[in-house]
Amino acid sequence: MDSEAVERLLRAVRDDEMSVDAAVARLRTLPYEDLGFARIDHHRALRAGAPEAIFCPGKTPAQVVTIARTLAAAHANVLATRADESVVAAFAASGLPYRHLEHARLIVVRPARVEGVGLVVVAAAGTADLPVAEEAAVVAESLGNRVERVYDCGVAGLHRLLEHVGLLSEANAIVAVAGMEGALPSVIGGLVDRPVIAVPTSVGYGTSLGGLAALLAMLNSCAAGVSVVNIDNGFGAAHQASQINRLVAKIR
Amino acid sequence: MDSEAVERLLRAVRDDEMSVDAAVARLRTLPYEDLGFARIDHHRALRAGAPEAIFCPGKTPAQVVTIARTLAAAHANVLATRADESVVAAFAASGLPYRHLEHARLIVVRPARVEGVGLVVVAAAGTADLPVAEEAAVVAESLGNRVERVYDCGVAGLHRLLEHVGLLSEANAIVAVAGMEGALPSVIGGLVDRPVIAVPTSVGYGTSLGGLAALLAMLNSCAAGVSVVNIDNGFGAAHQASQINRLVAKIR
Amino acid sequence: MDSEAVERLLRAVRDDEMSVDAAVARLRTLPYEDLGFARIDHHRALRAGAPEAIFCPGKTPAQVVTIARTLAAAHANVLATRADESVVAAFAASGLPYRHLEHARLIVVRPARVEGVGLVVVAAAGTADLPVAEEAAVVAESLGNRVERVYDCGVAGLHRLLEHVGLLSEANAIVAVAGMEGALPSVIGGLVDRPVIAVPTSVGYGTSLGGLAALLAMLNSCAAGVSVVNIDNGFGAAHQASQINRLVAKIR
Amino acid sequence: MDSEAVERLLRAVRDDEMSVDAAVARLRTLPYEDLGFARIDHHRALRAGAPEAIFCPGKTPAQVVTIARTLAAAHANVLATRADESVVAAFAASGLPYRHLEHARLIVVRPARVEGVGLVVVAAAGTADLPVAEEAAVVAESLGNRVERVYDCGVAGLHRLLEHVGLLSEANAIVAVAGMEGALPSVIGGLVDRPVIAVPTSVGYGTSLGGLAALLAMLNSCAAGVSVVNIDNGFGAAHQASQINRLVAKIR
Amino acid sequence: MDSEAVERLLRAVRDDEMSVDAAVARLRTLPYEDLGFARIDHHRALRAGAPEAIFCPGKTPAQVVTIARTLAAAHANVLATRADESVVAAFAASGLPYRHLEHARLIVVRPARVEGVGLVVVAAAGTADLPVAEEAAVVAESLGNRVERVYDCGVAGLHRLLEHVGLLSEANAIVAVAGMEGALPSVIGGLVDRPVIAVPTSVGYGTSLGGLAALLAMLNSCAAGVSVVNIDNGFGAAHQASQINRLVAKIR
Amino acid sequence: MDSEAVERLLRAVRDDEMSVDAAVARLRTLPYEDLGFARIDHHRALRAGAPEAIFCPGKTPAQVVTIARTLAAAHANVLATRADESVVAAFAASGLPYRHLEHARLIVVRPARVEGVGLVVVAAAGTADLPVAEEAAVVAESLGNRVERVYDCGVAGLHRLLEHVGLLSEANAIVAVAGMEGALPSVIGGLVDRPVIAVPTSVGYGTSLGGLAALLAMLNSCAAGVSVVNIDNGFGAAHQASQINRLVAKIR
Amino acid sequence: MDSEAVERLLRAVRDDEMSVDAAVARLRTLPYEDLGFARIDHHRALRAGAPEAIFCPGKTPAQVVTIARTLAAAHANVLATRADESVVAAFAASGLPYRHLEHARLIVVRPARVEGVGLVVVAAAGTADLPVAEEAAVVAESLGNRVERVYDCGVAGLHRLLEHVGLLSEANAIVAVAGMEGALPSVIGGLVDRPVIAVPTSVGYGTSLGGLAALLAMLNSCAAGVSVVNIDNGFGAAHQASQINRLVAKIR
Amino acid sequence: MDSEAVERLLRAVRDDEMSVDAAVARLRTLPYEDLGFARIDHHRALRAGAPEAIFCPGKTPAQVVTIARTLAAAHANVLATRADESVVAAFAASGLPYRHLEHARLIVVRPARVEGVGLVVVAAAGTADLPVAEEAAVVAESLGNRVERVYDCGVAGLHRLLEHVGLLSEANAIVAVAGMEGALPSVIGGLVDRPVIAVPTSVGYGTSLGGLAALLAMLNSCAAGVSVVNIDNGFGAAHQASQINRLVAKIR
Repeated sequence: MDSEAVERLLRAVRDDEMSVDAAVARLRTLPYEDLGFARIDHHRALRAGAPEAIFCPGKTPAQVVTIARTLAAAHANVLATRADESVVAAFAASGLPYRHLEHARLIVVRPARVEGVGLVVVAAAGTADLPVAEEAAVVAESLGNRVERVYDCGVAGLHRLLEHVGLLSEANAIVAVAGMEGALPSVIGGLVDRPVIAVPTSVGYGTSLGGLAALLAMLNSCAAGVSVVNIDNGFGAAHQASQINRLVAKIR
Repeated sequence: MDSEAVERLLRAVRDDEMSVDAAVARLRTLPYEDLGFARIDHHRALRAGAPEAIFCPGKTPAQVVTIARTLAAAHANVLATRADESVVAAFAASGLPYRHLEHARLIVVRPARVEGVGLVVVAAAGTADLPVAEEAAVVAESLGNRVERVYDCGVAGLHRLLEHVGLLSEANAIVAVAGMEGALPSVIGGLVDRPVIAVPTSVGYGTSLGGLAALLAMLNSCAAGVSVVNIDNGFGAAHQASQINRLVAKIR
Repeated sequence: MDSEAVERLLRAVRDDEMSVDAAVARLRTLPYEDLGFARIDHHRALRAGAPEAIFCPGKTPAQVVTIARTLAAAHANVLATRADESVVAAFAASGLPYRHLEHARLIVVRPARVEGVGLVVVAAAGTADLPVAEEAAVVAESLGNRVERVYDCGVAGLHRLLEHVGLLSEANAIVAVAGMEGALPSVIGGLVDRPVIAVPTSVGYGTSLGGLAALLAMLNSCAAGVSVVNIDNGFGAAHQASQINRLVAKIR
Repeated sequence: MDSEAVERLLRAVRDDEMSVDAAVARLRTLPYEDLGFARIDHHRALRAGAPEAIFCPGKTPAQVVTIARTLAAAHANVLATRADESVVAAFAASGLPYRHLEHARLIVVRPARVEGVGLVVVAAAGTADLPVAEEAAVVAESLGNRVERVYDCGVAGLHRLLEHVGLLSEANAIVAVAGMEGALPSVIGGLVDRPVIAVPTSVGYGTSLGGLAALLAMLNSCAAGVSVVNIDNGFGAAHQASQINRLVAKIR
Repeated sequence: MDSEAVERLLRAVRDDEMSVDAAVARLRTLPYEDLGFARIDHHRALRAGAPEAIFCPGKTPAQVVTIARTLAAAHANVLATRADESVVAAFAASGLPYRHLEHARLIVVRPARVEGVGLVVVAAAGTADLPVAEEAAVVAESLGNRVERVYDCGVAGLHRLLEHVGLLSEANAIVAVAGMEGALPSVIGGLVDRPVIAVPTSVGYGTSLGGLAALLAMLNSCAAGVSVVNIDNGFGAAHQASQINRLVAKIR
Repeated sequence: MDSEAVERLLRAVRDDEMSVDAAVARLRTLPYEDLGFARIDHHRALRAGAPEAIFCPGKTPAQVVTIARTLAAAHANVLATRADESVVAAFAASGLPYRHLEHARLIVVRPARVEGVGLVVVAAAGTADLPVAEEAAVVAESLGNRVERVYDCGVAGLHRLLEHVGLLSEANAIVAVAGMEGALPSVIGGLVDRPVIAVPTSVGYGTSLGGLAALLAMLNSCAAGVSVVNIDNGFGAAHQASQINRLVAKIR
Repeated sequence: MDSEAVERLLRAVRDDEMSVDAAVARLRTLPYEDLGFARIDHHRALRAGAPEAIFCPGKTPAQVVTIARTLAAAHANVLATRADESVVAAFAASGLPYRHLEHARLIVVRPARVEGVGLVVVAAAGTADLPVAEEAAVVAESLGNRVERVYDCGVAGLHRLLEHVGLLSEANAIVAVAGMEGALPSVIGGLVDRPVIAVPTSVGYGTSLGGLAALLAMLNSCAAGVSVVNIDNGFGAAHQASQINRLVAKIR
Repeated sequence: MDSEAVERLLRAVRDDEMSVDAAVARLRTLPYEDLGFARIDHHRALRAGAPEAIFCPGKTPAQVVTIARTLAAAHANVLATRADESVVAAFAASGLPYRHLEHARLIVVRPARVEGVGLVVVAAAGTADLPVAEEAAVVAESLGNRVERVYDCGVAGLHRLLEHVGLLSEANAIVAVAGMEGALPSVIGGLVDRPVIAVPTSVGYGTSLGGLAALLAMLNSCAAGVSVVNIDNGFGAAHQASQINRLVAKIR
């Protein structure tokens, strides 16, 4: 419609029903968001194929399902993150095709097999970090990346990490998940020269301060090449890892 | 220039050198910021007459004077806030007409008398809060508001505040400045039904935590009608008070 | 009654039953709060028509209803904020006329249509911010303001905000509600020259620290003209926005 | 028994069964806590008549009742603070004579009328502060002080406080209870020259940070003569107020 | 003058120049602060004889001397706290009679010998706490209290404290000064049944957080009868100790 | 197996089936973790006999039992810490031999009597600290240490601590457990010259900040010889105390 | 040399001077770090050409120059970050070839022109953020990346940012630098689908808390694809941006 | 003297000048600290040979020298920690024999060679951590321990640490010093089964928060056997390491 408005204006100019000056003035006062919207959309369209994601907390199960249904009309692999039991139940009753990944606390709506490209490694320090690590891994897979998991390789048992140096050094992006003292990303960043996206988890007690201790450790990493996302934000880390990996793999 | 580009395009349409469709497509891909800039400018132009302000910390005295010189070509009452001695010296050597308000730590470049409209009251709890209060008062005056000062009226000596209830109740906006326990805005907000913009100051020691104690107290005010700006931000409070007062006084 | 006491004293003076000096002395020792009370009432009376509000948390449903009943004897549109299910049930059983606004977590007792004056815009960044935004919007409406809502316009999708620049630039006061990184008020403050009252919400997780991250962002806004209220305090923001809007609309 | 040991030693010296040097050496190596214990007890004995208090949280109801039974064998007015419903039920089933003060969350075991001496005033800002204020008031009464209550006198409605200046100025100690911005103790400390013991409460939300905002405000009071206890610690404030009042009233 | 206004009004009533109703109305609208001022002053007058105090930081030496000169016209023992070298120099040049207590960072203007009444004990944990402890001690002496000092008695060397249990148990108020882990007030509060006013100091490094560690420890004291003032606030603690001691000693 | 791989390689070299250069190259590219693993294992093997421990929170009861079953195949006295009721029920149904220590919130699987060596003293300030203290004590016992308990010896009742100075001075390591103001380790560290491992507990309310107040106090101890572990980390303190005590007792 | 040791051992096996078992045992006890070192070096060697960097704070100027001299023997473009005047003076006197980039607070030793590949965009919100932004830009250039700068595009003047959407959408990595409310990365992350590495700066005052406000805002970004480094860590962001960009540009 | 008092009393008993009962009573009322003092001294005497230490900050150079002179009369190797240039100058002028260890910021007064026993390893992550590490190492040496240093072995270059696993596994106590992300103690605690005393340093910037990030990481170590001291507290860590090492070496 905005296009139509512009078109009408241009026709009026062409047909000498409106002077050039008047048209300039009129265009100047058009809400720029009308054109802007299209422009931004254009950039966003580059992301076509990427599944949209719904962050469940703070939404009712019914709302989540409704949004998922809308998105699934256009996309496969729509993700609902941090899905609790009530959300899972709502999907079960929805008639939508979905997969529930319990460890990852994820629902994948209209699941479709995606051929993974490149390599994203998701490393996790302890077993309690697995929900966040699995969220990252499944999100990365859904976004079309080849994902390898390196779990239970915390710094108190370094040898388990050292076994995987070869794999880590081939990754285009590494998501490193750790709670407690959060040292894993620093150690990985010291071992291999690949971008490490660190995810602090809320695993711990007392002075872990809900993950702040791990977050601070990661922000103060003595290894260059480590950046950090919010506590427990496996989704965000996977999203950036996918951006990097797919650029390297020339998928976009 | 962007206007010219648009004008050229429109002329081409008028002269049938370009089809309407081509012109629509072309306009659609124009960086919207070109029009957007004008549009925003349009809104900003509503502020005509308002002096621009330069926050000095982090800039060299030479930079401050250069920016001031540029702004002063178009505006009177250009403000340089938090001006220390080196900035004052730079202005003294600059040849620019200016006024130095030592208490307020302000330089007013190309000072011009403004007829103040409406009423903004600046209240301050203690003598140590005066630099921030004066910053607020002079900024408000420079922005064209009538300003009344009510100083040294902290809650440990309530009677000094109670004397001024009449004045406070006539203000279109009240800037309430206090450090330490920061109770002044609550008390004022309980006495009169006018918008109170609270400014915590870094006055205090130990658990004042550089003004955080006062800030928290103000955010938790039991009086409705109190909003808060950053610690020591007399400028920001005055700016909003001016927005309110001038709307009420129908000056814009 | 205090008036009566004063009247009796004055009659005694008139009738020469008490000397002027004795009366001066007597008046001087009268508890000043007696007169003071009246005086404050005088100021408060200017707010006539404004509904009183009850903050429910920490009160039993029975207490809330009792207070509401008392207030409703004198006022329409008495508000009970942050009303949970037990409070709603208590009102359902109370026989009082009321309206329950579920999203806003508000009860309006003795609801009455108020002709809204001026313009307050309530903008919200995300859907999870809606309870706070709706609290602000309904409170502002109940206080007699014309309210427009601009929702789901967070900074990750700027175009949705830019569509509404025109509306925002006409507001006498803007309540900007956002959680997470809390950038919305800064962006609005940069677009339009109207007073923005920022409300951080507790929406987020991890380092959102229950809304502190958004609060800090808002207090550090690079846009002048932004002030801030407590986390989730939609009521307080609406109250100040109403003070401003009604002053501008000359309703008091 | 320790006394006996010392006595035996002294007899041995008297009877020349042990040399003075050996006895000095022996005494020197006696655990000093044996004598020390008595000494400390001596000081503690000065507190005779004061009811002992049991802080309930973290103890099972059965443990609380057992401790109460033991103490009640020696004392009247044994206090169990922060008693929840399970503790109340345990007392109901215990056969012990007790009084339950619901607002104050207190159980008084073996309640006995105490003639209150001197004057302690307990002032509270809002209705939500009453549980803490009542804890302070009832504890102070149980400790033998005359207590007057001044409630609902927060700084947003100063006139309600000013009515009671006379009473406040007669108190030997004032317990001032407030949440949110915690300004009440400062205002009282500015009005009267009596020791004010401030009790921040956890009343509030968001930036009240569970009472830290009120605590910080109180510690930064611009009024001299204000000291502070832990958040919600009505018991501690009453205890110190009682120490002061009873010293003034020469009851110990 | 306000008295005169009231007097004029009353004369007018007496002389039938004004009706009783008109006078009631007029009185009702008189600013209550006029009468209120007198009333508050009356309470403040009870403090006559107490030296006023000037907190030096944030004031220029010249300002401090000017304020001191004014106060010293009416009072002996005017205190200037936290006086640095520039303030001392200003007094040296001022011609005013003064005493400089270097350890306590205090200037006493118009020093006069005061006969100390009752007993305030000032206890300090370490030598680095002495500036704060001496501030408390000298302030208490200037306010007319008998003061005993118990220094260098931190909990790492308990025997040095235990030597003074007798003295402590005779005090009407104890000021307990400690930095680092701040355990001294708890230990004293456990030994004797007298009001303890705890002063955390900023002595320490790293996690002492400028005295916050000591402050928190004191607020969490397991001994009842301990209240706390701001970090390094020897003045405030002495002020309250003096209020208590002088009440007990019936000096006011 | 890694040994076998190396052995095969060496045999090939010996039998001239592989050149020295090829073998060097091959060894160089062997994942060093293969040898490294063995090496680390060697060190870890020194701990033989030490029961492994399972931190239960964040694991399902089924997972805990499965891990315990595996460990118990090789070790006696396998510990499951912070075991809640659901974990206890899972063990009850598991058929595994176990002991449940309710106060310590511990399950000991395949409990076996261990002759305790040396001396570890576990001291606790208050009764609410007992769960953490008992965790430390039982863990230390399970690790083969002689353990003595000194409970309810907080600094508000020093005499109860002083009774045990003799025992404390014989310990090879002291675990000092305290919440609230956390002063106990400082006092012990001042009394005896033995390593003190301080455990802050989350006992307290308000400004105890979940144990941070005690932690900070302990980190700022004025007594040398005090180190600190995480809040409520009785297990960790016992582990280090055991390391020390067994080194002293020459058990490893 | 370690290789030689292994070679000698293998030769001894080949020549039957050492049994296979002895060799296995010997290899097993070799410090694995000897092989490990080489292995890690191998990975590090992949970074050949990358200039090493020296973080100057905490080192004496002489130490910085000595380290730089050593590194410059092997590398061009050795970086010394956060170089203050004393470091600059030391380089001036050192005889080393160097370039001083004042805004970036950087010294580049043995500067050499590097052909930049791919595209890294460095965006900065305000002029006060330039030192950090320039550090990032120059480091990225020195690491062999093509760098474009987009400065002074803070969210209070969105149009300046919108002009550069095209450039931003072509970047392989974007370094977004902002202080105060730190909203820039969120806005960029919402506009373009490229990895954004956010750098909070310590620009601001009061509640900016030395950059913590900006950091928290960035960690809570509502835009996916944003990760964060330490406050003012332009170097680290540039390092990771370079890792990404060079992977995409297939330079390693 | 107290001994004399007791002796006089005993003689009086022996000589029948005082009854046993009177003597018991007299002893009971003796300040127990008199005997207590001796008793504590007895324990402290076990530390004979240990140099006393003076923490310099907050003391004037003259005070430090005076205390050192007194201590040096009785002890060799008296330590003055955190000695700045003014303290060094004061010792140079004092005539006392001393050694200045610049890196460790230590003065050793009356230095004497001590034969080191056992083994304490001091490990440090980065060169900026050396002042704290050297403080620990020199203090441990002065206390009579054999000390080995393992420096520059931070987790970003693990191989440098792994070289020293053998040495670490022989230590009776390990002092692990690290700033920034503070991961070193966790890694060491995972490699060897010896008590690790972690020292966070204030090395870092931004979110290192003066060492708090490292401290939190250390308190949350996933390796058992790690305890922590205050930020930069090399002295305290060395003191406890010495307590442990000397117990193991049976030197006390």
